[in-house]
Formats: sequence, C-alpha cells, structure tokens
Amino acid sequence: MSVTQTAKKISAMEIRGALDIAIAATEALERELKGLKGTTNSQIKQLKKAGTTLKKARPSAISLPNAVNYVIHIAEENRDLIDKEFRRKTREDVREFIREQKESLHKIAEYGANLIEGGDTLLTHCNSDTVVEVFKKAQEDGKRIEVLCTETRPRHQGYLSAKALSKAKIPTKLIVDSAVHYAMKEYNVDKVFVGADTVFSNGYVINKIGTSQVALCAKHMEVDFIVATETIKFSPESVHGKTVEIEMRDPGEVTKLSGVEILNPAFDVTEAEYVDSIVTEKGVIHPSAVYQLIKEEFGWMFTEND
Amino acid sequence: MSVTQTAKKISAMEIRGALDIAIAATEALERELKGLKGTTNSQIKQLKKAGTTLKKARPSAISLPNAVNYVIHIAEENRDLIDKEFRRKTREDVREFIREQKESLHKIAEYGANLIEGGDTLLTHCNSDTVVEVFKKAQEDGKRIEVLCTETRPRHQGYLSAKALSKAKIPTKLIVDSAVHYAMKEYNVDKVFVGADTVFSNGYVINKIGTSQVALCAKHMEVDFIVATETIKFSPESVHGKTVEIEMRDPGEVTKLSGVEILNPAFDVTEAEYVDSIVTEKGVIHPSAVYQLIKEEFGWMFTEND
Amino acid sequence: MSVTQTAKKISAMEIRGALDIAIAATEALERELKGLKGTTNSQIKQLKKAGTTLKKARPSAISLPNAVNYVIHIAEENRDLIDKEFRRKTREDVREFIREQKESLHKIAEYGANLIEGGDTLLTHCNSDTVVEVFKKAQEDGKRIEVLCTETRPRHQGYLSAKALSKAKIPTKLIVDSAVHYAMKEYNVDKVFVGADTVFSNGYVINKIGTSQVALCAKHMEVDFIVATETIKFSPESVHGKTVEIEMRDPGEVTKLSGVEILNPAFDVTEAEYVDSIVTEKGVIHPSAVYQLIKEEFGWMFTEND
Amino acid sequence: MSVTQTAKKISAMEIRGALDIAIAATEALERELKGLKGTTNSQIKQLKKAGTTLKKARPSAISLPNAVNYVIHIAEENRDLIDKEFRRKTREDVREFIREQKESLHKIAEYGANLIEGGDTLLTHCNSDTVVEVFKKAQEDGKRIEVLCTETRPRHQGYLSAKALSKAKIPTKLIVDSAVHYAMKEYNVDKVFVGADTVFSNGYVINKIGTSQVALCAKHMEVDFIVATETIKFSPESVHGKTVEIEMRDPGEVTKLSGVEILNPAFDVTEAEYVDSIVTEKGVIHPSAVYQLIKEEFGWMFTEND
Amino acid sequence: MSVTQTAKKISAMEIRGALDIAIAATEALERELKGLKGTTNSQIKQLKKAGTTLKKARPSAISLPNAVNYVIHIAEENRDLIDKEFRRKTREDVREFIREQKESLHKIAEYGANLIEGGDTLLTHCNSDTVVEVFKKAQEDGKRIEVLCTETRPRHQGYLSAKALSKAKIPTKLIVDSAVHYAMKEYNVDKVFVGADTVFSNGYVINKIGTSQVALCAKHMEVDFIVATETIKFSPESVHGKTVEIEMRDPGEVTKLSGVEILNPAFDVTEAEYVDSIVTEKGVIHPSAVYQLIKEEFGWMFTEND
Amino acid sequence: MSVTQTAKKISAMEIRGALDIAIAATEALERELKGLKGTTNSQIKQLKKAGTTLKKARPSAISLPNAVNYVIHIAEENRDLIDKEFRRKTREDVREFIREQKESLHKIAEYGANLIEGGDTLLTHCNSDTVVEVFKKAQEDGKRIEVLCTETRPRHQGYLSAKALSKAKIPTKLIVDSAVHYAMKEYNVDKVFVGADTVFSNGYVINKIGTSQVALCAKHMEVDFIVATETIKFSPESVHGKTVEIEMRDPGEVTKLSGVEILNPAFDVTEAEYVDSIVTEKGVIHPSAVYQLIKEEFGWMFTEND
Repeated sequence: MSVTQTAKKISAMEIRGALDIAIAATEALERELKGLKGTTNSQIKQLKKAGTTLKKARPSAISLPNAVNYVIHIAEENRDLIDKEFRRKTREDVREFIREQKESLHKIAEYGANLIEGGDTLLTHCNSDTVVEVFKKAQEDGKRIEVLCTETRPRHQGYLSAKALSKAKIPTKLIVDSAVHYAMKEYNVDKVFVGADTVFSNGYVINKIGTSQVALCAKHMEVDFIVATETIKFSPESVHGKTVEIEMRDPGEVTKLSGVEILNPAFDVTEAEYVDSIVTEKGVIHPSAVYQLIKEEFGWMFTEND
Repeated sequence: MSVTQTAKKISAMEIRGALDIAIAATEALERELKGLKGTTNSQIKQLKKAGTTLKKARPSAISLPNAVNYVIHIAEENRDLIDKEFRRKTREDVREFIREQKESLHKIAEYGANLIEGGDTLLTHCNSDTVVEVFKKAQEDGKRIEVLCTETRPRHQGYLSAKALSKAKIPTKLIVDSAVHYAMKEYNVDKVFVGADTVFSNGYVINKIGTSQVALCAKHMEVDFIVATETIKFSPESVHGKTVEIEMRDPGEVTKLSGVEILNPAFDVTEAEYVDSIVTEKGVIHPSAVYQLIKEEFGWMFTEND
Repeated sequence: MSVTQTAKKISAMEIRGALDIAIAATEALERELKGLKGTTNSQIKQLKKAGTTLKKARPSAISLPNAVNYVIHIAEENRDLIDKEFRRKTREDVREFIREQKESLHKIAEYGANLIEGGDTLLTHCNSDTVVEVFKKAQEDGKRIEVLCTETRPRHQGYLSAKALSKAKIPTKLIVDSAVHYAMKEYNVDKVFVGADTVFSNGYVINKIGTSQVALCAKHMEVDFIVATETIKFSPESVHGKTVEIEMRDPGEVTKLSGVEILNPAFDVTEAEYVDSIVTEKGVIHPSAVYQLIKEEFGWMFTEND
Repeated sequence: MSVTQTAKKISAMEIRGALDIAIAATEALERELKGLKGTTNSQIKQLKKAGTTLKKARPSAISLPNAVNYVIHIAEENRDLIDKEFRRKTREDVREFIREQKESLHKIAEYGANLIEGGDTLLTHCNSDTVVEVFKKAQEDGKRIEVLCTETRPRHQGYLSAKALSKAKIPTKLIVDSAVHYAMKEYNVDKVFVGADTVFSNGYVINKIGTSQVALCAKHMEVDFIVATETIKFSPESVHGKTVEIEMRDPGEVTKLSGVEILNPAFDVTEAEYVDSIVTEKGVIHPSAVYQLIKEEFGWMFTEND
Repeated sequence: MSVTQTAKKISAMEIRGALDIAIAATEALERELKGLKGTTNSQIKQLKKAGTTLKKARPSAISLPNAVNYVIHIAEENRDLIDKEFRRKTREDVREFIREQKESLHKIAEYGANLIEGGDTLLTHCNSDTVVEVFKKAQEDGKRIEVLCTETRPRHQGYLSAKALSKAKIPTKLIVDSAVHYAMKEYNVDKVFVGADTVFSNGYVINKIGTSQVALCAKHMEVDFIVATETIKFSPESVHGKTVEIEMRDPGEVTKLSGVEILNPAFDVTEAEYVDSIVTEKGVIHPSAVYQLIKEEFGWMFTEND
Repeated sequence: MSVTQTAKKISAMEIRGALDIAIAATEALERELKGLKGTTNSQIKQLKKAGTTLKKARPSAISLPNAVNYVIHIAEENRDLIDKEFRRKTREDVREFIREQKESLHKIAEYGANLIEGGDTLLTHCNSDTVVEVFKKAQEDGKRIEVLCTETRPRHQGYLSAKALSKAKIPTKLIVDSAVHYAMKEYNVDKVFVGADTVFSNGYVINKIGTSQVALCAKHMEVDFIVATETIKFSPESVHGKTVEIEMRDPGEVTKLSGVEILNPAFDVTEAEYVDSIVTEKGVIHPSAVYQLIKEEFGWMFTEND
C-alpha cells in the first residue's frame, strides 16, 4: 500500500485508532524508503514530502505527526550513510520502532492489570482498546473483576466496550452517562480506567466528552482515576504551549430540535490533579511526569527544531 | 370524575406531575365530600377510604399522600361540626387548599425569577415545569437569559425543556449529559435550576438521575445550584428517617446488549451541601431549613399520629 | 432515693450516661415534690435548691441541668395552683416528661434504623448506647448489616460497642483508631453513626476525641456521617455563645513516659459541615436545624431568664 | 428632630451605621406619632407617609425599611384602639422596640465574646462596630486576645478598627488585604469575625468587598468564620428571592489611570457554606437558620402583605 | 562597567528585575575575563572572587547567584585550556549563555501566548514583565483578550501592569486586591498569569504577597493558574531543603498608626497544588517537574559541590 | 558474618530498619565476593544465588531486593574483568555504594532540617529513625522546635519516637492516634514529618497504618506534610504497576474479643496529592518526581531486564 493509499484510508477512517494510524503511517514510510533514490539529502527530502502527505490525512490525531516525525528523525540520524546503506539502516531502525509500538499495547495491558486487585469493581467511559486490554489481562491473571461501562452519548461507544468485555466473559454492566456518580457510590467502584486522545506536557488529558466529569466524581469519592495510553499520544508541541481546539461535531449526532442549538463537543480536558496515574508502555507515572517522558521520547524534536 | 376514575387516571399516568396529581386527588375528595352521609365520624371514615384508594394509585409520588393526608386532616379539624355544616366547612377549607396549590407554581416562578440576573447563563437538567416557569418569568421580567438543557438520557426529557423554552423565545442550547462540566466552563454558566422529586428533612434532594453529578460540577466551579419545588414534595416521613428506594426502571429504556446487564436507576440523591437554595412557594430557603418547613406545613401529621 | 443520694451516685458515676442521669435527676425531683410544704413560691424555692444540689453533681453533663431546669420550668408554669394541687399537677407533668425521655431512645433507634439499608457496612467510634440501639433495631427490622468499631484509645470504649453488637449477633469487626481511613476504603463503609456529648446551636457536635477525624474521612469519601442523640444533650446556653472547655483527662490513662508530656483530651469538635444528619427523638434533622429544636424544646429558658 | 430632618441627616450620612439609622428612624416616627390626629385609619396613613419619606433617605440600607415597616406593623396591630389611646399604646410599643434595638449590640458583644477563648488570635476585615464591641467584651472578660486588621482598600476602614482596638488596649496588627492568607498561616489565626451589610434567607452574607475571599481562606485552614450582626440587617424580601445589586462605587476612590477602567465594587457575597456561625441578639445560629429568624422577626410582613 | 560598578548598581536597585540582574552580572564577569592573567587556576580564583562581590550585591535575588555560579561552572569546564585560549573559549561560552537568557523572555511570551485562547478574560497580580509580554504576544497573535489587574498594595505595582497593557491597546481593568474573588465570578476570568520571585524544587512558588490568595480563588472556581518565569529563578539550593525567609518590608510603606503594629510581608508561598502550569523558556511544565528542570539546568552544581 | 547468617538475622528481625537491612545485605555480599572463584560468569552466578538467599529473608522490605539487585548490577557492569580484578573492582564499587547508603541518613537529616523553621511545632506518626534525625539536626542547628508524637497503636512505636526526642532534649508531647486533628488545631502544628515503607512511581507512599489519615488532616488545615525517606525504599517494580498487598498482622496485637473479628492492617496508602515534599538523600522533591528518581537510581533494572 502506497503512502497515498495509506493517507486515503486514514482520511476515510478505514484505518482508525491512534496506534493503528501510527503503525500504518510508519509502515507506509518504511515501504516508501525501499524505492528512494539519489543523494541521502534528496532521499530525506522525498521522505519528508511523503510524511507531509500522511500528516494531512487526519490533522487531529496526534499519533500521526508523532510517528511521521519520528521516522524522519531516524532518517536524519542516519544522514552520514549513503545510498543503499542509508536505506537499509533507516528501514531497520524504522522496523524496530514499529515493533516497539506494536508491543506497547501489550505492555500497558500488563502494567495496568498489575494495578488491579482481585475483587475490584472498575468503571470505564467511552471505548478505549487499551483499557479493554488492561481489563482482559487482569481477568487472564485470574483476578475476579466487574466492569461498569457508560453508554457515552452521542455515539454510544460504551456499547462497544461493554460488548468486548462481555465477550471476554468479564461481568459487565452498562449505565447512562448521568448515572456515574450514583453508580460509583452504589456499586463501590474501586478504580476508573480511561484512555486518552492527547496528553499535554503539564499533565492535562484530552479525552472523550464526559471524562472530566467522571474524574471529578472519582476524586470526590477517593476512587483511583487511571489513564491508560501509549506515549505516542503525548503532545510534544504542548511543551511550547500549543493547546488543542475542542472539536464541535455534527449536532445531528445528538438530535434535531427546531429552534434549539445543539452543541456537540467531542472532547473535554481533565486536569492533572484529577489523574492518579498514567499507565504507558514506559511505566506507571504521575501525570506531572509527562513533561519528562516527552523529553525522553521526543527530545530530538526540540534540539533539531531549535 | 369520581375518586375511582381519578385514581385510574393517576395510575395510568394520564394525570402526571406532582402538582397536578395533588390537585386532582384533592378535587376528587372535595367532590366525594358532597355526597357523604351519616355521622361526622362515619363521613370521615368514608373520606379516609377514598383517600386510601387514591394513595394506592401511584405510591411513589410523594405529593399524593401529602395532599390526601391534608384533606383528611382538614376533615378531622372540623370534627365538631355535623352533617351538612361539616361538609360545607370542610369543602370550603379543601377548596382554599386547592387554590393555594394552584398558586404555588406562580409564586415559585416569581421568587425564582428574582434570583436570576439579566445576562445570566442558566443550565437545567431533565424537565421540570416549575423550572421552565421560573425561566419564563425571568424572561417576562425583561431579563436577557440563555439556557442550556441536558438531553437527560434515557428518556430525553431535556428535549421537552428545550422545546418549551425555545417556544417562549428564550435562546436555548442542548447538550449531552456528559458535557455538563465542559459547558459550565466554556459557556460560563451562572446558575443551575432543577426541580425535585422528593425533598428530605435533612435537606437531601431526590431528583432525576444525573442531578447529583450536575450539583458536584456546580459546586466545583462556584456555580449556584438552586432547586425549585413546591413544599407538597417535601417528605414528612423523612422526619422519621424514612428514605426512598431508588427505582430501577426498565433496562430496555436504555438499550439492549446481549450478555450485558443494563442498570437504569431513575433518580439519585443530591446532598444538602451541594444545594445553595430551595425556592418554594413559602420562600427561598437554605436546604437545611426543610425540617422547619415540614414542621410548619405538615406538623399536624406528627401530633395526630403520635 | 433522696436528692442528696441521687446527687452522690451521679457524682460517683454510679449513675452514668446522659439519659440515665437526666432521668435519675428528674425522678429525684419528682419524689422531692411529694414532701414539699408551704406556699407555692416557697415550694418552688425548695425545688430550685434541690435542683442546684443535683446540677453540681456532674457539671460537665449537659443533660443534667437541662433536665433540672425543665422540672423547675414545669413548676413555674403551675405557679397559679396551690398546695396539694400544685404538687399533684407538677408531679404529673414531670412524670410525663420522664416518660418522654424514656421513650426517646426507642424513637431514635427507630428513626436511625430507617436510615440504614440492607447490606450496609457501618462504622462507629467510641461507645454510644443510642448508636448500638440503632444498629440492633436495623438488625431486628431484618436488614443484613455489618459494623466496624474503632477501639477508641485510651479507654477502649470501642470494645464495649463491639461486644454489645456481637452479642446481638451482628457481624462485628474491630480496628485501631488509625485504621479508619483505610477501612472506609477497603471495606466500602456506607454510613458512620456516632453519639454526641453536647450539640451546639450552630450545629457543632462535641463527642469523644477522634470523632472529628472520622467525620473528615467520611466527608472525603462521600460516606454519610450521622449523629444519633437525644435533644436533652443540646446546649441551650450555646445560643448565647457558651462553648465547652475540652476536658484534659489524666495522662496516666494513655501511658507514662519520663520526660514526655502526655496530652489526653477527652473530646473534640465536629463542625456542622461534616454532619449529614442528626437523628433525635424529634426526627431526623440537618445539623443546622439544631437552633430551631433548641428553641422548640428549651425556648422557655430564654423568655424566663431574660 | 422631625421626620424630614431625620431623613435628611440619614441621606447626608450624618446618621450612619445600620443600627443608628434604624433607631433614628424609629425615634422620628415615635415623635411623629405624638402629633397625629384624626381617625386611627387616617393616623396610620399619615404614619405610612412619614415612613415612606424615611425609607427613601437611603434605599440601600436594609435596616431602614425593616425598622419603618416594623413601626407601621405595630400601629396596625393597635388598629382597634382609637385616638389618644391608639397613640399612647403604639408609642409605648415603639419605645419597647427601640429599647430592644439599643440592647442588641450589647447582647451580640456578650454572645460573640463567649465564642472567644483566652489566647485567641483573631482577624477582622473592614470596620464593624459590632465586631469591635465583641472584641472589647472578650478583653473585659479577662481573655488575652490579639487582633489582625486588614486595611480594607479602597477606603481603609480597617484603620478605624485598628485604632479603636488599640485604644481599648488590645494588641493590634494591621496588614494589607493581600496578606490575609499569609497571616492566617504565619500567625495561627483562630477565628475571623466580620460584620454584615445584609443577610439573605438562604444564609448568604453581603459584606464589604473582600469578605468572601477572607472566608475562602478561613475555610481552607479550618479557621472559624463568624458573622456578627443584628437581625435588623436580615432581608425579609430575600424570602421572595429579592437579591441585592452590588453597588459599583466611584472609581476615583481607588485611583485614576488613563486608559484603564477602574472597577470599585463595594460589596461581595459570602455563601452560607463558608460561614460557621452568625451571632445575633437572638443567639448564635448556623447561617441556614436565617430563614427561621426572618420568619420569627419579620413574619408579619408576609401575612400582612399577602 | 566594572564588576564593582555593576555590583553597586545592583545594590542600589538601578539594575532591577531578576533577568536584568542576571544578565548584568554575567556581562560584568565576561568583561572581567578579558583582563585576567596567570595560570588557569589563578584566573578561575579571580573570577570566583569577582563572583562573590556580585553575589553580595543583592542576596535575595536568586537569579544573581544562579548566573554567577553558571559562569564559574563554564570556566571550570574549560579548566584544561590555558591562558588566552581559556579566556577566549570561556568568554564565548558565557556570551552564548547571555544570548540564551536574552532570548528566554521571548520564548516564554510565545509559549504563554499559546495557552491563551481568543476571547479569554485574564487576571494578573502585581507587575511581571514576563506576564505583560505574554499578554502582548497573545494580542499580537490576533487574539482578543481582556485583562484585570489588581492594584497590589502596598506599592501599587499593579498600576504599572495596567499602564503597560493599556499602552499596548489591550482592554484593561483595575481592581483592589480584595475584589479578586468577586471579579473572577462576575467577569468570568478564564486564566490567571503571574510571575515568580523564586521557584522551589518541590514546585512551591514564591511571589508577591497576595499571590497565594489569588491562587486559592482560582482553584475554587476552576480557573487556570499559570506562572510565567525564567528558569534562572529556580532555586537549586531548594533541592537541599533551603527555604526563603519571607522579607518583612518597611511598615511605613503601608501606613502609620500609633499603637498599631504594621506587618508588611513582601512575598507569600503558593503551593504546587494550586499551580496548573509553569511556563518557562524550556517549555510548559507541571509545577512538580521543577525538580527535573533544576537537575537539567543546574545539575553541575550538585556534582561539583558533592 | 556469612550470607546465611545475615539472612537469618534479617529474618529474625535482629537486623531491622530498611537502611540497616540494605547495608547488612550489601556487606554480606561484599564479603561473599572475597571468596568467589571460577570464571566471571560463574562468580556472578554464585553472587546471584547468595542474593536470592538474602532476598528471601524478608520479602516485604523493599530495600532488601533493591540493595541486592544493585550489587548484582555492579557485578554485571564489571563483567569484562576477570578473576581477582573482577572481585577487586566489584568490591570497591560495592563499598562505595555502602558508603553512600550510610551517608544518606545524614544528608536527609540536613535537607529535612533546612525545611524546618525556628519556632515550628512538628508532628510525627509512628517511629522513623530518619525523621528523628531530621528533628535532632534542626535542634542542633539552633532552631527551637516542639514535637507531637502519636502513640501509634497497636504496637506503640510512637513511644520510641517520643523517648528518642525527649532524650535529645527536644520538648515532646504524646497523644493518642485519635487526637491528631484536635492537636493540629489546638497546638498550631506547622509541619508533619513521617517516614515511608515503600514509595511508588506515581508518588503514592506506603507507611504505617494511620499515615493517610494524618495526611488528610494536614491537607485540610494547610499543614505541610513531608515524607523523609532514602531512595532505597522507592519501588522500581511500581513502574510496571506492581503494588503492595497491605499486610494483615496478628489480631492479637490489638486485643482479643470473643465473637469479634479484629482487623490489624499494618500499613496504608497516602496518595501523592497529600504529600507536599519528599526529602531524600538526592534532594527535596515533589512526590510526582519519584518516577524520575527511580529512573535515575534504578534505570539499569529496566534496560537490563528488557
């Protein structure tokens, strides 16, 4: 699949999910590398052009530029090599990066499951594959758990979570989004796990609308609020204060009411103080350690760009 | 309409709304009074029997026993009168009570509207006629307001609120239940108004599922949280510690997911500390003054029953 | 038993417990009444003298002056009667008051038990007979409950609670005072019930040292914190700002450590905002309704004394 | 001094202070009563006219209509008397009301001082005569106290408090308004006492700008926040939801800066949850008991007006 | 300008502002370097002596020792060079450091402005050049903003902020320090920006008296509280627990009141939990990442000194 | 003393305290090294076996595996050396590690004492040698301090703290565990210092039961809550989500009550948000910087194991 084809599929949402997008883009660039010609500089230029095509495919998915930029960074690290050797070494490094990304879900599942105790009642909002994997791993580890899913209006992604968990034989309950506070109290929820869309350098977490409300309830009842996410969703640009415009989606997703303005924000911001831990493939951190992880993972962006 | 017919209509939810139920039941008893015969004691007995029929029509609506008990209380106050004179005086007193009840909505609208300032952005959850009247009165008083309605899953009663407000030419926006925290911050909500299902003697408010979550968000952002309700919804039995079992409604109202248990609680409890004011037809009170109002309005229940 | 004998027994702590003290003192005065002679004024004077003797027996127990003052108030209400008739009527009224006091524990147990739901895990601090009765009533009402008792250093009154509950076949656990926060979380405590030593007009509750700490933990986890107490422990003088000096008890009760000062405060103050409900024989109230109940129960003190 | 003269002096702020205004207006009406003629109805009409003149003198001072309305209420209570007898009885009742008002400062000082313990470090904001009297009474009672005064920009009323306390030999410190949080921590403030401009039926307190900020700091450090005020400042109209427009005073009081808009709000609102106690001449109450006291003190307003 | 002259100007406050002081001291040392003679060791010794002279000029300004120590660190890094080469290389490195410092203000302005959204109402306390630059950059970026300045008693530095912003055509309002809580609510403040005097390794921020109070209000209303500061104000010694004595300035700055002690603390401490982000020239961090930045920027201090 | 003997003494609790255990185990391995023979690989294998023996001696003490793993890490770093040279270099490195550990207590005492101001009232829970050293250092530095110790049921370790402090001539008071909230308010506690059993990568602190309750009280009164601990107690495995099972100790330590279940949890978890600073031998950090310190100190674990 060519870079253009991959970009199209990402744009058409045939390839979805932060991690899948990142891997698809990286693999496209890896294949692109095979056919490059000319001086190393010229090859890097061609790679950057391909990268730009990919990045435009879905500007709001942070994992896409993160992955593309990383591939370019690898290429630039190999700048001293020439021709075939440049391509060989760069492709090798890129494939290593792909392997790591593929492994990250597995690692987060393992680390996240370690945080769960037998007998825990868990709650999740929206549908995060990462969180579902964490719960399945806990179940596989022999821990008896029970999960409450919110339906997550307007698109009911919570139904997907509930189905996946139920399929994995995990006792699963579903509630409307309004019932979170009630359910935390009545069902003695022990921990909340949610995914993330983007994580900022000051520890703020952008995730599906309603997440900040769940976090507020959790804090009020001393329920642990845990975010499970790959570091590929950390925003290096947030180090420079770049924030994210909350996308207002099609009002029709909610309903139509003549004379009434329907507001349909896709995400909200959960502040660092509401987050007890972030589980990444690099380990379990406090949200305020995000800045450090960004420096470790994406530090090259700052030195190269400055 | 006879007592039996009224009871049927209440039971079939043809007569709905706490206040309408109370008035319908009282009017049925007033009509019943006309045809009573025998000694005063015997007439009271018949009245009580009719009252019991009515009370059974919808056991969960607190305004129903409150209204019925009040009519019986009036009759007992007139115990010293006989025959026609007993009926005449009792019916007169009951009609006075009906007049007061009918006026209460008007009064709450006036008092509640006084709490609203021009330029206020307001938020409401679910659909309370009382709250809608408060907003319409504020608009009539020439205050420029704007209202955010939650859709209120699973039955979308928020759509009714939004339509009623929009019809009254009040600028109205609708959001999903998950967007309350986001919207309070983004749209600088000044005050929240909600209705009540039942109010307890310690100031706890039972209302539509999600209310306690809205209250939590409001408290966290210093947004005033105001309950508008007739005192006919205050629970005299809560003085004796009687609480309300939160009704679990038909899961099918939410969705059907094979292998997943759907929980559909109808109400939740908002604790007194989250409520800034309760607007009643008797005035604006702090939630902790509920005990006093119960004593003032329903004090006879305790002395007669003890 | 004469007034002097009763005073001695109260002083020697042979008669203990706020309610028992109040009843014993009232009964002593009732007996004293029988033998009084002379003008009504002179009889009242003698009664006041007897009352003063009793009040001195244990100055720190608020129920003692409350009971004595009430008896004198009754006598003064009967000031227009003379001789035998004065005594007869006054004794009759006093006996009515005694009956009410004796009934109050029963009522609180009933109202308090109504607040408990089947399946609740409860926690109590120190040893309050009233709280034990509440739990036993809930058990009798067929509710399955479980109770956690703190040991309550330095005098281990929690052992008494644990034994009484265990004897009543209620599953009972005991923890050290430091384990309250841990236990609330681990064992999903639903409600805390404690007694009271004194209750102030602004809703502050004086109770065994550690109570305010338990209340703080409860608030932090949205656990209901409920005080069960007779209104005879409400302080009418707190209306005039009178506070209570926290008694520092014998350091030896804790331990002896040379060179180290042992501080042994007997009580602490729990502020109104930490208390969800106060269960009294007059009903379940918000702590801020204490002022009203004091006015209702002890209002004569203010008008007579002013 | 005639009604017109009194009104002028109130208007010109020669007569200041909520209590002094109330007493001056009442005394003016009492004198006016002496010269009234005609039927009782006509006399009441004249009295009402005089009352209206007085009320217009300073519309923002709540104690003024409260006092005037009370005098008219007394007159109406005596409606059945005629001529001289009407005037004699009404003047007698009015003088009794004046006596009570004059005594109220003394009572609040006594009750408030009871709340202070020897060794307390106290803080006050702005300049309330009532609070100064509380502190002086505590000092007279032999309690060793120390007081921190804020300067209270823009008009530095805190200097008046500091001078009055210093004159009374109470060790006094002065800080800028910004240093409240710092000072509470560094100097271990035990209690805050402030006055009130108006108190609402839901327990909200209107007082000098900055009060709500001091209350916030106090709550955050478990420092008691106590309001000392005569009930003549309670707003009966707040029962009907009437709120107070926060007065924006002359920007020139702060400073002049070309191109910069100076905002000079005179008051702010402290919500009930930040107030531990309100000390009134009727006793020490929780802020949520304000509704009850309004009913007790101003209840006639509601029944007469309805 | 010689080292001695520079020291004098710093001491006399002719050179003010943390950054200006740091740059002036560094430039003085750079010039000093030109004239040094002897062995490298001897040259370093002379440099250290000059550094000590500078450090003594204003012991309370953390940027001064930070800058001086850094220059000495550079010199020691070049220890292996000799004579002219040592001076050349060291001066070159020092000039690079100066360039970076000069650029830092520009970077913070850029990153900080990125955090501001169009339509934001902002609030600042005291007068921080860094914050003013952030606001001006946001304005330049085409964002419509509005700023509220506190006057900042006792020295009214807020007037300087207000003038600078007004001059930059930014709509600016000024309030007294007491009106912060009121203004946040009434004017829907979105974000607070303040500067810093010193930042500790545990994330505590020392800044102008009143800052901690503004932070408390912001937290209570979910208003973002952002500190904008160069890392040159981070305290490396705080890693070893060194704290700062809060300076008590001349009472006469506030006022004079006979018999009253005027307290005039210059700064207060804002704890990490109240700070949402710190904007530095290295990026936007959570306050708890300060320790890491100190390690990155000043790590050589620890290894060299140990 | 051989590895076996050391393991026995650790197991029998003759060697106690996290630091002493770590040092004893390290020294045992250092001695073991002396007698090793064969290839370097074989020597490492033997060392690992000895390490396993030691680790089994007390599985719950985190400092034990941390120390053992570090020694093995050193050995593996020296893998390229052979025979005698391997042993010499490894023993030298291990001795350096021992020196550092021994010095850490001294450093924490110094850094911790820097956080204490003259006149401070301090509170500690349980008995931490590290905390005692901090207090003694502050006293040596000439700061006048006063310390409150909790008795720390069930084993009264607080008596040990009180005795040690009293012996060091520090004015010391002892209270029951329930009196913490009371004492913080009455005695104006400025700072709390406690030790730690284990510290997690997300900043959570495991310490003696009751610690989380003390932290809750401290937060509620703006009292600084400081943990003093060597980094040898940081849990590298917590980076992978490994948590600690709270040990339930012998119920008999508390009491015996027939029919009552005694729960005796040894530890509880204090969440990061309650901790203001952690004082380690590496400096004073915010709890959220723990992840970074683990990376710095134990980073080799992750790279070697991965």
